[in-house]
Amino acid sequence: MKARVHVTLKNGVLDPQGKAIHQSLEGLGFDGVEDVRQGKFIEIELSDSDPDAAKARVAEMCEQLLANTVIEDYSIEIEA
Amino acid sequence: MKARVHVTLKNGVLDPQGKAIHQSLEGLGFDGVEDVRQGKFIEIELSDSDPDAAKARVAEMCEQLLANTVIEDYSIEIEA
Repeated sequence: MKARVHVTLKNGVLDPQGKAIHQSLEGLGFDGVEDVRQGKFIEIELSDSDPDAAKARVAEMCEQLLANTVIEDYSIEIEA
Repeated sequence: MKARVHVTLKNGVLDPQGKAIHQSLEGLGFDGVEDVRQGKFIEIELSDSDPDAAKARVAEMCEQLLANTVIEDYSIEIEA
């Protein structure tokens, strides 16, 4: 069973990485780019068989390690 | 129009960040974790109105800047 986790900065939190990408894209001649935000994407392979239990466990992993919940949001998708 | 880009390491490419997360999760007492891979997640807000043209442009951004295609794969989703 695989969990796909997205960790993104909360709205309003400055994103210097996203800003750097935005400026580089403009420097390369890509116009019409209004905003860029960079987050993390984490794939976790689990031995669990119950999707609900797996999701709860991954949420606990996010709270304890994967996300800084002061400034970051996370979302979890479970694939069978 | 928003593009959601995932940049992930190709299979077989060593992922020290993923390995560090894996070990930290085990250290925190999460068992049953078989593998962890970390990638990047980039959200791009575009002024384009044609989804197909937007996807082609974002693919070009990935080739030129966002992904190192020697070791990374990318995938693009366009949201209206």
